[in-house]
Amino acid sequence: MFLLYLFTSFAAVSGVLGSSPSYNGLGLTPQMGWDNWNTFACDVSEQLLLDTADRISEIGLKDLGYTYVILDDCWSSGRTANGTLVADKEKFPNGMSHVADHLHNNNFLFGMYSSAGEYTCAGYPGSLGHEEEDAEFFASNGVDYLKYDNCYNKGQFGAPETSYKRYKAMSDALNKTGRPIFYSLCNWGQDLTFYWGSDIANSWRMSGDIYPQFTRPDSRCPCDGDQFDCAYAGFHCSIMNILNKAAPMGQNAGIGGWNDLDNLEVGVGNLTDDEEKAHFSMWAMVKSPLVIGADVNHLKASSYSIYSQASVIAINQDPKGVPATRVWRHQVPQTDKYGQGEIQFWSGPLDNGDQVIALLNGGNKPRPMNTNLEEIFFDSYLGSEQLSSNWDIYDLWANRVDNATSANILNNNSVGNATIYNATALSYKDGMAKNDTRLFGTKIGSISPDGLLNTTVPAHGIAFYRLRRST
Amino acid sequence: MFLLYLFTSFAAVSGVLGSSPSYNGLGLTPQMGWDNWNTFACDVSEQLLLDTADRISEIGLKDLGYTYVILDDCWSSGRTANGTLVADKEKFPNGMSHVADHLHNNNFLFGMYSSAGEYTCAGYPGSLGHEEEDAEFFASNGVDYLKYDNCYNKGQFGAPETSYKRYKAMSDALNKTGRPIFYSLCNWGQDLTFYWGSDIANSWRMSGDIYPQFTRPDSRCPCDGDQFDCAYAGFHCSIMNILNKAAPMGQNAGIGGWNDLDNLEVGVGNLTDDEEKAHFSMWAMVKSPLVIGADVNHLKASSYSIYSQASVIAINQDPKGVPATRVWRHQVPQTDKYGQGEIQFWSGPLDNGDQVIALLNGGNKPRPMNTNLEEIFFDSYLGSEQLSSNWDIYDLWANRVDNATSANILNNNSVGNATIYNATALSYKDGMAKNDTRLFGTKIGSISPDGLLNTTVPAHGIAFYRLRRST
Amino acid sequence: MFLLYLFTSFAAVSGVLGSSPSYNGLGLTPQMGWDNWNTFACDVSEQLLLDTADRISEIGLKDLGYTYVILDDCWSSGRTANGTLVADKEKFPNGMSHVADHLHNNNFLFGMYSSAGEYTCAGYPGSLGHEEEDAEFFASNGVDYLKYDNCYNKGQFGAPETSYKRYKAMSDALNKTGRPIFYSLCNWGQDLTFYWGSDIANSWRMSGDIYPQFTRPDSRCPCDGDQFDCAYAGFHCSIMNILNKAAPMGQNAGIGGWNDLDNLEVGVGNLTDDEEKAHFSMWAMVKSPLVIGADVNHLKASSYSIYSQASVIAINQDPKGVPATRVWRHQVPQTDKYGQGEIQFWSGPLDNGDQVIALLNGGNKPRPMNTNLEEIFFDSYLGSEQLSSNWDIYDLWANRVDNATSANILNNNSVGNATIYNATALSYKDGMAKNDTRLFGTKIGSISPDGLLNTTVPAHGIAFYRLRRST
Amino acid sequence: MFLLYLFTSFAAVSGVLGSSPSYNGLGLTPQMGWDNWNTFACDVSEQLLLDTADRISEIGLKDLGYTYVILDDCWSSGRTANGTLVADKEKFPNGMSHVADHLHNNNFLFGMYSSAGEYTCAGYPGSLGHEEEDAEFFASNGVDYLKYDNCYNKGQFGAPETSYKRYKAMSDALNKTGRPIFYSLCNWGQDLTFYWGSDIANSWRMSGDIYPQFTRPDSRCPCDGDQFDCAYAGFHCSIMNILNKAAPMGQNAGIGGWNDLDNLEVGVGNLTDDEEKAHFSMWAMVKSPLVIGADVNHLKASSYSIYSQASVIAINQDPKGVPATRVWRHQVPQTDKYGQGEIQFWSGPLDNGDQVIALLNGGNKPRPMNTNLEEIFFDSYLGSEQLSSNWDIYDLWANRVDNATSANILNNNSVGNATIYNATALSYKDGMAKNDTRLFGTKIGSISPDGLLNTTVPAHGIAFYRLRRST
Repeated sequence: MFLLYLFTSFAAVSGVLGSSPSYNGLGLTPQMGWDNWNTFACDVSEQLLLDTADRISEIGLKDLGYTYVILDDCWSSGRTANGTLVADKEKFPNGMSHVADHLHNNNFLFGMYSSAGEYTCAGYPGSLGHEEEDAEFFASNGVDYLKYDNCYNKGQFGAPETSYKRYKAMSDALNKTGRPIFYSLCNWGQDLTFYWGSDIANSWRMSGDIYPQFTRPDSRCPCDGDQFDCAYAGFHCSIMNILNKAAPMGQNAGIGGWNDLDNLEVGVGNLTDDEEKAHFSMWAMVKSPLVIGADVNHLKASSYSIYSQASVIAINQDPKGVPATRVWRHQVPQTDKYGQGEIQFWSGPLDNGDQVIALLNGGNKPRPMNTNLEEIFFDSYLGSEQLSSNWDIYDLWANRVDNATSANILNNNSVGNATIYNATALSYKDGMAKNDTRLFGTKIGSISPDGLLNTTVPAHGIAFYRLRRST
Repeated sequence: MFLLYLFTSFAAVSGVLGSSPSYNGLGLTPQMGWDNWNTFACDVSEQLLLDTADRISEIGLKDLGYTYVILDDCWSSGRTANGTLVADKEKFPNGMSHVADHLHNNNFLFGMYSSAGEYTCAGYPGSLGHEEEDAEFFASNGVDYLKYDNCYNKGQFGAPETSYKRYKAMSDALNKTGRPIFYSLCNWGQDLTFYWGSDIANSWRMSGDIYPQFTRPDSRCPCDGDQFDCAYAGFHCSIMNILNKAAPMGQNAGIGGWNDLDNLEVGVGNLTDDEEKAHFSMWAMVKSPLVIGADVNHLKASSYSIYSQASVIAINQDPKGVPATRVWRHQVPQTDKYGQGEIQFWSGPLDNGDQVIALLNGGNKPRPMNTNLEEIFFDSYLGSEQLSSNWDIYDLWANRVDNATSANILNNNSVGNATIYNATALSYKDGMAKNDTRLFGTKIGSISPDGLLNTTVPAHGIAFYRLRRST
Repeated sequence: MFLLYLFTSFAAVSGVLGSSPSYNGLGLTPQMGWDNWNTFACDVSEQLLLDTADRISEIGLKDLGYTYVILDDCWSSGRTANGTLVADKEKFPNGMSHVADHLHNNNFLFGMYSSAGEYTCAGYPGSLGHEEEDAEFFASNGVDYLKYDNCYNKGQFGAPETSYKRYKAMSDALNKTGRPIFYSLCNWGQDLTFYWGSDIANSWRMSGDIYPQFTRPDSRCPCDGDQFDCAYAGFHCSIMNILNKAAPMGQNAGIGGWNDLDNLEVGVGNLTDDEEKAHFSMWAMVKSPLVIGADVNHLKASSYSIYSQASVIAINQDPKGVPATRVWRHQVPQTDKYGQGEIQFWSGPLDNGDQVIALLNGGNKPRPMNTNLEEIFFDSYLGSEQLSSNWDIYDLWANRVDNATSANILNNNSVGNATIYNATALSYKDGMAKNDTRLFGTKIGSISPDGLLNTTVPAHGIAFYRLRRST
Repeated sequence: MFLLYLFTSFAAVSGVLGSSPSYNGLGLTPQMGWDNWNTFACDVSEQLLLDTADRISEIGLKDLGYTYVILDDCWSSGRTANGTLVADKEKFPNGMSHVADHLHNNNFLFGMYSSAGEYTCAGYPGSLGHEEEDAEFFASNGVDYLKYDNCYNKGQFGAPETSYKRYKAMSDALNKTGRPIFYSLCNWGQDLTFYWGSDIANSWRMSGDIYPQFTRPDSRCPCDGDQFDCAYAGFHCSIMNILNKAAPMGQNAGIGGWNDLDNLEVGVGNLTDDEEKAHFSMWAMVKSPLVIGADVNHLKASSYSIYSQASVIAINQDPKGVPATRVWRHQVPQTDKYGQGEIQFWSGPLDNGDQVIALLNGGNKPRPMNTNLEEIFFDSYLGSEQLSSNWDIYDLWANRVDNATSANILNNNSVGNATIYNATALSYKDGMAKNDTRLFGTKIGSISPDGLLNTTVPAHGIAFYRLRRST
């Protein structure tokens, strides 16, 4: 059998989990934040981080929940004679604790990066064999989050046990510091990470690196989306490639341990608005971390309004913490220029009894699509209350902030009086309990037990709904 | 070469096996019983078990052979300071030995559950590293059967040797208690369990968890039925998916060590009667354990009459203990709404020289199907006695208890004077020896060496026959 | 790069191999003999072995080279208190050394069987952990050959290193006895045996067990022929299935270490004469051991004349020891009742500069097939001497003993004055050097550099030729 | 994430790599030289090496950069009593240091060969377990390069960790000698070498052995080109087979550690001139070592002019060291006689901002092909400077030395006054900086942001261009 919480539609469950669902108490919902890699790669500095943090705060993204500011690779200039890591003095003239202090003072959390290898992926010192001293370095510099990569690992992979031991060494070292540090594995899903990640970490990458393409196959990401156990994760993996790899893995994630589909490419590259919406919706729905990969100082208004769409974020931060399931998939003849064309239907339960669904169109033409309650409540039996009820349909994008408002916020570097959701003031959990309309989209209709939900989904796009029991 | 008993049609074998075919003397036929998981999941209690046992007894299922009452996950509330497991006092106010005593007094056997991991799948304490003390706990509480799961195993899998060692630790610990305890592995077929399961256990799961669908592919069960060595077993595997994975594995099972295709979904979910018959027949024929997954207090009459079909159970409990073989399979154009449509023919030898055969129709239309002696005795050579004989055909479902009788039994909570088989009074082996007609179905015709056996098989259904040499 | 002797057509090689090509000096050509398993399975006895040996001798098969008489599984009755293996007293009332003496007195070599596991496949004591004492048992009983199986191996497989260590333990133990013992691995090709087999053994099985079917897929042999690295070897593998698995492996076999495609099914089951010829030819050509699986006391005349076809055996026993290569394969529409239909062309070099070729028709209709020198000498470059020469074509089956003669031999239990080749009197090597016509088939034509070799190949049959440079 | 230098088109990168990109300081560009195996196999001698070196020098190939003279297998005659390797006295009457001295005196570097196994592939003593003494032997004999093979490895493979340890032992031993020795792994890509090769070595073979065929599948190279993680590398792999296996691996190679696609077959076998050009271009473009496999004393003029094409070599030796990427591939209906027909487009960045592209036609008919800037700069976003610029197109083969000149050089054994590039006099790096026209091909046109690059590519041929920003 497998993880309990997925069975709750099968039976009235009175028990509570016997152990904490998070190994270290962190990650009760997927992490949200910003990481410099996808846009800035190695071009990092104190100024970049602090300027970015200020901007994130000023345009309201911090209050929307993006609280982890994550410094990726290339921050180091080596080790001291006795082995302590040293931050690059040119990039970080005041040291890392100065960055941490600034971030903490502004209610951010600070993420840093290392690799479970001899070197980081960019060739800086790695932490393999230095776990304890490096964990101490991070803790003593006020770090709240560690992204832990997989390059130059000396062949120490190829069996779950081998990878587990290598990543557990840092898990133990972080625990030993006494500081609560969110532990984010970046071993690209190698050695079936989803089976053992939650034992020792709060999230784990499950594929090669993302790139801002919706369907384009790239020779550098050699496993197609159905190969969940890829021996060569690579990089330049498309959004649909990663999503398909993640499809079976939802059952192994949950409160305290999340599948990480990689940083968000919203506002990076040349994705269309429909593609960005679909990307953000699906990452939210499968409970991936929501980590901004864009340059927030040069954000399109439309991308801003995607990152700030609270009704979608609320799906991600739902307290139930259950990733949605892909209920069906079909190839369609309307393939795009890369020969790709797939439609899918996803559905997942929410904490308050609502259900989130997605009709995803990977074809290159707008497409009428439909579903019904039997598909939506795919784990329920005939006669169940779910299948016998009427449900109201809320479009989770209908209440999106308009472009003018977004542009205003970005231009003024201030939210002003726009009604952007503020999770600092009212958490998503409490906001949902209070029925804050910004968290529920816009009602567009309803569906009865024998009814059909019909809609037209744009090419490379999504219809993304929350179903609420009709009253 | 491989297991001896499969070669018996090739040669006159005078030898006997050199060693006991069961490592611990148990499991000479596949286990039968009831397990709470598929219907009740974590909603377990003393009352559920005892009420269920009483009901199983009263409606005649115990006397049909369903003697193991298996308490699945979620019974624990942790460990004492010195490491002893503790049963949840709310669910089991009188402790586990009270349950055991009640069951033993009523001639049931008592099964419990743990996991070869840090936690059970539902997050309760697991037995990895606690094998000896936990085996002692189970033995001292009168446990007769251990279902041993695979969650939170700290990456200790990925090679047969790794999994073998982990599961052997509990095997040794159970042996050390001195109490005969049926050892049922639940590691989802990981690391080619069928190659090493019989060395240390009485049965082993060979796939991800079953769910009550006949053919529906589910993204959470990502390996299709031909992938016998699935790296991601998952759950929500359909009946046909599991059956196809099991097809090659019969050669590695036999007396004392069985492939476990998971609990029976008869009476669970929305399977049709034809689907339930096919499911039950095939599980019986491949010598899977027959473990009821339904709520016996809310059983449909038709499902009851499947569980109580003694002529099918007799196939399962046949003393020869040889799983049937899939002789052929073909795709048909009459696919169902999930795009599935496969027909198959299975055949297997029985202890008294009879042969059991199944014509299985996975398509969505009733279908004329046929076979002949060359297919039925697929391992015999031309000129053999088997191919030269006439055979009578017995339909193993023709003597099924009618719905009115079943309803009466269920409503009265008593078998009354219905002619339900009683294996307590007369074992299947003895009943077959005495030619008890309830164990042989109904003769519907015969087939000659050059003849053809013709029948029409319902959609998602089975024709299930026992062939007996014509006299 | 890979094994040297395969490169000889690329360059004039003046070097000799730096080390002995056989790890123990045995197996300079593939072993020939008889094994009881395929016909008699566990029904073994002193009488069976000695009667069979006498018969093999009397009908000339011993002098054709079938000198190993191999007793397979089921000969044991356990171990003594101090661990020594004991032969079953009922089956072998005079002990194993009596058998060995009889065989040796008649110039046979004696083979026995054990398994690198806790039990043999039929459940008798295995040698895992008993390697030294068992090797001593075999040596002290005059055993010349050990077939070493893979059942009940306690999960000790799954990586080459794991299997290697298990099989090396017996290799070392056999060496330590001081007696030259041919070491024949039977681990079904698990863990890429072809890569490491020749380090420690004289031959190694490379697939699941054979059964007497030419193309029929069987669910118990789940890997198709292109899956050379099958995780589940199984049994009931067809002749074409095994041959296709072996196709790439020729490069890893050679003098001292052979790919073993399993015992010969000539005269077992219901193969046609064309199938038996193709089977025997291909096993000979890829330098598989030639081990008779039939009951030689009940052999068809046509099967006898296949086993005794010296011109084909001479291919197998050619001193060069280079397995032939599959040059091409194509699917044809004339598929048989199992949906199989493949044609192939094979070619391989011989010690004296001749070349052996096979046109193999797996379709169900006779088929015109052809080839030319470019295909035949597939490793030669334009302008080479091979491609510029004329070659005479010898049909290796044209000089087959006629059925009347064969029947006479079998009926009279004596070769009489039939011209059956006698390798005891004149070895294959010497016979070829002396141009003994029985070793070269019958000349049927010739082929020029631009010519085409045309022939018609029967369904499930072969055209099998030796090419000799025209003089 | 993965290797840094591939991300440079995503972001302005100011950082430098934190560690040396070469583990031992060697291999800053792919090695160039000559290896005897592909033509001479075991037929090696002092005379062959020294004559070949003289010839390489005289016809200008040394000054083109082919400086490593590599003696492959079969040079040994065993070990002394105390374990020191001994060179075969007949082949090398003056010992190996005499060869080294001659080579060094002529400004060559000396390569030798061993295997990480019990024997070399040709059966000579291997270095497994003798790493330190053998490294010392090589160092003390003036060896500058070790090709280290994989035969007879005692089953020590099957997991990255297992292979890594075996190859690291020699890496450590070479380092310990204190002599800089280029370390070239030849383990056929086993166990995902590309993941760990650069930690311990300067290059690593990534496939089975090449043979001089462009597309022909050979049963001895059983994995097709998309199987990058082939469990059975084999040999006789075609050029396209190896190229396709290499396609995803460029991301794991770079300065100091290169994917080795095996020796060049230019001038070996019967490749057409178009095939040889395509082969040489692609090996250059993916930054494979350029190691001549031909007999330079019997070289066709056309093959000579390929080996000496400096504008193509300059691509290979570009200081940026980034392997090109396969941007797309398509099957075409114009398949050749082996059923193969694939067209591909490759592109890669160069150190000075230029870009190299290849239009590859694997079909059997000349074919119009085209591309545009979006494909050429496949990693750039809309609006980037690359996509907005005009580019001049230089044909890298248009300035090829004509056959008459080549023939003259070969006949006179002297470059004479032909304008063959001399990298000894002016390195590729400096030559490019000085805009030496021999390094840039011939301008044939230009392409604008919205333009299309049109050309016709011969069957089994290539169009190979360098794009330079228009001024």
